[in-house]
Amino acid sequence: MSQNSSSSNNKDDRHAEKQITPRAEDFSEWYLDVVSAAELAENAPVRGCMIIKPNGYALWERIQKILDDRFKELGVANAYFPLLIPERFLEKEAEHVEGFSPELAVVTHAGGKDLEERLAVRPTSETIMYDAFSRWVRSYRDLPLLINQWSNVMRWELRPRLFLRTSEFLWQEGHTVHTTEEEADERARQMLQVYKDFAEDVMAVPVFIGQKSESEKFAGALHTYTVESVTQEGKALQFATSHNLGQNFSRAFEITYLGQDGARHYGWQTSWGISTRAIGGMVMTHSDDKGLVLPPRMAPQQVVITTVGHGMTNFDRVPSEALRLAEQLRGSGLRVHLDDRELRPGEKFFEWERKGVPLRLELGGKELSAQVLTAVRRDTGEKQEINLSQADTQVSELLDKIQTDMFRRAAEYKENWTKEVDSWEEFVKEIQAGHLVLAHWNGKADVEEKIKDETGASTRCAPFDHPAEKGKCIYSGEPSSCRFLFAKAY
Amino acid sequence: MSQNSSSSNNKDDRHAEKQITPRAEDFSEWYLDVVSAAELAENAPVRGCMIIKPNGYALWERIQKILDDRFKELGVANAYFPLLIPERFLEKEAEHVEGFSPELAVVTHAGGKDLEERLAVRPTSETIMYDAFSRWVRSYRDLPLLINQWSNVMRWELRPRLFLRTSEFLWQEGHTVHTTEEEADERARQMLQVYKDFAEDVMAVPVFIGQKSESEKFAGALHTYTVESVTQEGKALQFATSHNLGQNFSRAFEITYLGQDGARHYGWQTSWGISTRAIGGMVMTHSDDKGLVLPPRMAPQQVVITTVGHGMTNFDRVPSEALRLAEQLRGSGLRVHLDDRELRPGEKFFEWERKGVPLRLELGGKELSAQVLTAVRRDTGEKQEINLSQADTQVSELLDKIQTDMFRRAAEYKENWTKEVDSWEEFVKEIQAGHLVLAHWNGKADVEEKIKDETGASTRCAPFDHPAEKGKCIYSGEPSSCRFLFAKAY
Repeated sequence: MSQNSSSSNNKDDRHAEKQITPRAEDFSEWYLDVVSAAELAENAPVRGCMIIKPNGYALWERIQKILDDRFKELGVANAYFPLLIPERFLEKEAEHVEGFSPELAVVTHAGGKDLEERLAVRPTSETIMYDAFSRWVRSYRDLPLLINQWSNVMRWELRPRLFLRTSEFLWQEGHTVHTTEEEADERARQMLQVYKDFAEDVMAVPVFIGQKSESEKFAGALHTYTVESVTQEGKALQFATSHNLGQNFSRAFEITYLGQDGARHYGWQTSWGISTRAIGGMVMTHSDDKGLVLPPRMAPQQVVITTVGHGMTNFDRVPSEALRLAEQLRGSGLRVHLDDRELRPGEKFFEWERKGVPLRLELGGKELSAQVLTAVRRDTGEKQEINLSQADTQVSELLDKIQTDMFRRAAEYKENWTKEVDSWEEFVKEIQAGHLVLAHWNGKADVEEKIKDETGASTRCAPFDHPAEKGKCIYSGEPSSCRFLFAKAY
Repeated sequence: MSQNSSSSNNKDDRHAEKQITPRAEDFSEWYLDVVSAAELAENAPVRGCMIIKPNGYALWERIQKILDDRFKELGVANAYFPLLIPERFLEKEAEHVEGFSPELAVVTHAGGKDLEERLAVRPTSETIMYDAFSRWVRSYRDLPLLINQWSNVMRWELRPRLFLRTSEFLWQEGHTVHTTEEEADERARQMLQVYKDFAEDVMAVPVFIGQKSESEKFAGALHTYTVESVTQEGKALQFATSHNLGQNFSRAFEITYLGQDGARHYGWQTSWGISTRAIGGMVMTHSDDKGLVLPPRMAPQQVVITTVGHGMTNFDRVPSEALRLAEQLRGSGLRVHLDDRELRPGEKFFEWERKGVPLRLELGGKELSAQVLTAVRRDTGEKQEINLSQADTQVSELLDKIQTDMFRRAAEYKENWTKEVDSWEEFVKEIQAGHLVLAHWNGKADVEEKIKDETGASTRCAPFDHPAEKGKCIYSGEPSSCRFLFAKAY
């Protein structure tokens, strides 16, 4: 397809066909170069918004497909609620409106007239959904109510960056109502685990999961649970979140059910979401100075077969054999692109490297005579020979190995880059060195703010896999019952 | 899942649990009752917008899945463009802005400030996409460019009706650029055929396809092709459209390519779309006074197994046998719901009838002893016995038959309800009788408008399957070269 060809880059985009800036030189510039060179997205003419190009949208489609199947297995049904929310809805939950007001885009004019009521473009859909839930939920027999929505949302962004922070982004938001606090909390944690499994098993992105501090939690939540990934720059990136909303919204929106005891009760709620931001997280975890590196389970194209040696005397049978191979591999369930364009091999290799295809197979007259393929891994650059007669098994195995190796390397990085410290001096030193830090903190918001002001590091979460442990707050010296993860963050 | 239970209706919705108004009494009220009783959608608190409930959204997911696979087979890639469009973009194509201006919703305020530039919520995405295409397209090697987007759009609606006309709706919009006018026109017609096949083969909705008159075409198109379905009220309903845009937009947005001749040329373009409106069309074609009737290929649940005879002495083995049967049928690729709730059978039957499940299988102790199932068709109400030992084959065959019968009946209705007339007197009589009419017309807009003013009937299309034929305009007596389809329309 033409939109996959290298010539379809954005004429005006300074990142498009330039060399990719090395990570060591300028990490931010490197990231934008990688996104541009792989043709994932570009800036839109409306400030802060992005155009997700076919290569980038294909990644979102992988996320949608895999998570949507999983949500449905867990009993969740999809629905769609309106884009526009009357501002008075947002005002019903005090913390919620305070959290979102500064970021709202507002429709004031429609159908040729000024509107009587201002309508916010949804920044998230708690309020519009829960107004409906208050009508849908009547009795305990209607619960749990498990609803999800795939949609666009808008939060006006002053410092936009493709995928990571954009004024409009795509996401899914799940919203549930339960009869008990325990069941709601279990659901919130279950969905967090779904995101963790997706990050690690599909995106090969190792993550921390844990609970946010009071000041970092979602506006209106009782508890926010978070999945945090680590970039190659040593920053934390909020990858997905899941909220135990308690009864904050059910009280504000009158979501009540008739219990088995014959009395009316407020429902217990959760909400949880992942967005196009996760694509940015994955790019930042895996890519290198040559461009995008995709893990095989995420890659829209897992394998590219490139023909080489066009015009050589022994080339005749190459195109038909390449096609046969492509169909054989597709037949074993692989996603395969055949690049038989008559271009210099180096030009083709360069393009597929930038686009992050996990495995390149080279087939020319020489390979055909020897009944072998040259396989080149995108993640390591390693070359190896594959027997043409066993291509399907060997390619599948190699893709599995790439997936595993990518996760292992990223997990080692995450492990090595996270330092446990017990003094303020060490804390400052490690944060300055670009590490993530596990440290005791007294849980107080004023101390959290001072730490952030002085070092740039914010609390990311109290990790679930870190046992409760008594200690002293590295800043105040006051007692603490667990370590928090601190890091600079996107 | 709880959202499928009958008790999750909208408390405040007057349609929710009331008897369905008979079609003969009030067709509009019947339609809203059917949509509500099947829990497809409800009105949102923002005027003109709707909430698509899980049962309705599952229909949209069927549409998405089937069409998206087809688009991809035809080389189309998905992408995502911004929701907000600067008003100056819309103004670049004169007819386009004139057509859409009255329907725009406009964001004037964002991030706590008044915006310097008004941003329209997209009513369609030609302008924002083509601005990008002008950068993406450089040479003939980039063409054809074949892009599709699944998204929400907004056109402020004064007389909203669920699915048929809502201020916000979901749709897909395909946009292509070609090197020749012929190739663009072929693509526009090809996509029209995709919609026709989908309507007829999946939704069992027989349709007319043809070309719109000049006054009914899309704002900015050279030609608009349309798929028109027929409601049981005898009205036409625009089901999907495909536009040959010529070079109108490529000239306005400077989409040029370097040809093989070394010169720069403007691209030839198409756009094509189908929306949640098609769901309304399907409901209006098939449903009856008992509620929704779904064709098996569209039905999210094709079969409901209902247990009967709870509490009877021979009931013991029924639940496990019902579960085994459900799994057997799912194993043969059918979408099956098991309703083993301990409710009166009539209550269960009533619910699944309203929800339109194509086939109900009743299993109780009596059936189990006889090793038979009672199968009840939703479309005809016919009952028949099915051998439990051959359930998978017999159920599949029965579903195929329901699909075929539903299309045949609707096609007969369409045929019988469409009258060929050659005089103004006949024309008026047939339109008044609620029929669709094929009649000669001189192609002039003033005559078209007079016909509409006097009878309420608009031109729907010049049907492709109707041979060119000389005749006289039924209104003006002037010469005409083909018959147009006229009808009252949604």
